[in-house]
Amino acid sequence: MSLTVVGSIAFDSVETQQGKRDRLLGGSAVHFSLASSFFADTRVVGPVGEDFGPEEFAVLEGRGVHTDDIERIPGGKTFFWAGRYERDVNNRHTLQTDLNVFQDFEPKLSEASRAADVLFLANIQPDLQRAVRRQCEAARFTALDSMNLWIDIAHGSLLDTIALVDCVILNDGELKQLTNEPNLLRAARKVLEHGPRVVVAKQGEYGAAMYTAEDFFALPAYPLEDVVDPTGAGDAFAGGFMGYVAAHPDEEPSDALLRRALAYGTVLGSFNVEAFGTERIQRLTPEEISERVADLSRITRFDDAPVPLRA
Amino acid sequence: MSLTVVGSIAFDSVETQQGKRDRLLGGSAVHFSLASSFFADTRVVGPVGEDFGPEEFAVLEGRGVHTDDIERIPGGKTFFWAGRYERDVNNRHTLQTDLNVFQDFEPKLSEASRAADVLFLANIQPDLQRAVRRQCEAARFTALDSMNLWIDIAHGSLLDTIALVDCVILNDGELKQLTNEPNLLRAARKVLEHGPRVVVAKQGEYGAAMYTAEDFFALPAYPLEDVVDPTGAGDAFAGGFMGYVAAHPDEEPSDALLRRALAYGTVLGSFNVEAFGTERIQRLTPEEISERVADLSRITRFDDAPVPLRA
Repeated sequence: MSLTVVGSIAFDSVETQQGKRDRLLGGSAVHFSLASSFFADTRVVGPVGEDFGPEEFAVLEGRGVHTDDIERIPGGKTFFWAGRYERDVNNRHTLQTDLNVFQDFEPKLSEASRAADVLFLANIQPDLQRAVRRQCEAARFTALDSMNLWIDIAHGSLLDTIALVDCVILNDGELKQLTNEPNLLRAARKVLEHGPRVVVAKQGEYGAAMYTAEDFFALPAYPLEDVVDPTGAGDAFAGGFMGYVAAHPDEEPSDALLRRALAYGTVLGSFNVEAFGTERIQRLTPEEISERVADLSRITRFDDAPVPLRA
Repeated sequence: MSLTVVGSIAFDSVETQQGKRDRLLGGSAVHFSLASSFFADTRVVGPVGEDFGPEEFAVLEGRGVHTDDIERIPGGKTFFWAGRYERDVNNRHTLQTDLNVFQDFEPKLSEASRAADVLFLANIQPDLQRAVRRQCEAARFTALDSMNLWIDIAHGSLLDTIALVDCVILNDGELKQLTNEPNLLRAARKVLEHGPRVVVAKQGEYGAAMYTAEDFFALPAYPLEDVVDPTGAGDAFAGGFMGYVAAHPDEEPSDALLRRALAYGTVLGSFNVEAFGTERIQRLTPEEISERVADLSRITRFDDAPVPLRA
């Protein structure tokens, strides 16, 4: 039950109605791995600069995340992102993006990372995702994330990569853009035709939906009155989802198992937004996760009681 | 188990990628009542012009809907709406709105309509909704719909009306606008503070959520590859929801019953969009409704299997 994630490691500056924070530990691989660390042995592959120090490593290692494959570039600076969320946190403005060491990132996987049972390709250039995928031959379940930029400028490469993974995890708008298909069910089915056996549509405040050849499943977002910082929610979601799969090494990822995985993903994503950066997940407990999953099951269930219908 | 709905009766001209149809039977009270007719004796209160003839009455009466309180205005023309949907049917353009006889509508309820067990105030001016509400003293469950126009220009009147009903059924954007609160959970709770015991948030392609003092519940929209005409989906949804409540005259509308009602509403809304205007609901059968509700239960359920989580 080992899990490898390849993606960005960042410092984020985030401004919301709840306040402003500089130099938060962030990046897709960070949010993902802290979430997945509750389920499985997780290894992070990604680049950092010299400004990434013991304090940051300690956050990951504090959750048992293996950091051996975090590449510290001499003289480099860590990927930096700054953004502002409006009062309606669904509206986000990017203020600054400095790729820094992420610009020339070429993933280098140790033997341990290559031996992963489960692999997550976070949002990086799709050629790189493919190169990593090919190095992890033993992986029994693989997934990728992407973004509008790659759908625009590397469409063919992204489709080639999609053909090599078991699962695609994208925002619903990205799925529609990728397939030029405004109907989400059709968009998901088009992606399935490229090879994956599962498509997960992240829907932000509305939750998430999952499509396989035989199955459709959807969950609302866990209802929260206070969303402090949405940054990384999708990555924590993916971390919970993939982590749950990784935690079942002897079980085929059946549709039933993937449904449960989606619930754990939903819950990890919901915790992630309750504080700035990684703060909430850092102090999260297994008990809180289990309680919220049980709660999610309760709030999505109805027991049909057929009624006499009039012809 | 009698249900009264007060609202618009219309002719619609609709253009979608699937084609163009003129003079479709439409209006909120029509879509609502055809849906609710599967569950309960339904009476429609609303105005039509002389252009509304036996053929239109026959559609309603064919489903057993009582049309005695449809007021035919001499020399008048029926409310007319024309609209166009983009390839992405979530984008709609209103091309023409002729209020016609709806402009001076003053609801007149017969004794039978006033005696309703369940009352739905479709989207009309909130002063009129309040006047109708006061006439139906016997109603044990009442709900209203509204729109951005009334939230803008009759905000106080709408809140006064909301204080008099058991349930508010609005789009999530309207709930946020009504309360000036971008977080939907907070918006719904603010509406509950005005008096209703239930708030239903319609979320279009994402489904619907329901809020009570004690409960939260959400369902995805039923997944469809072909959405032919979304017009009236929200009204058919409300018709299924209120109809299910009306079909249980001896049962308090508990949270569990309202969850089931939301499932029936979701299913009626999903059928409504499968053809132009009222065409799909006209040929709908009780068996199809029951099957789709069972399907909805199946596709929203996960059975939690706790996993050892790492502290």
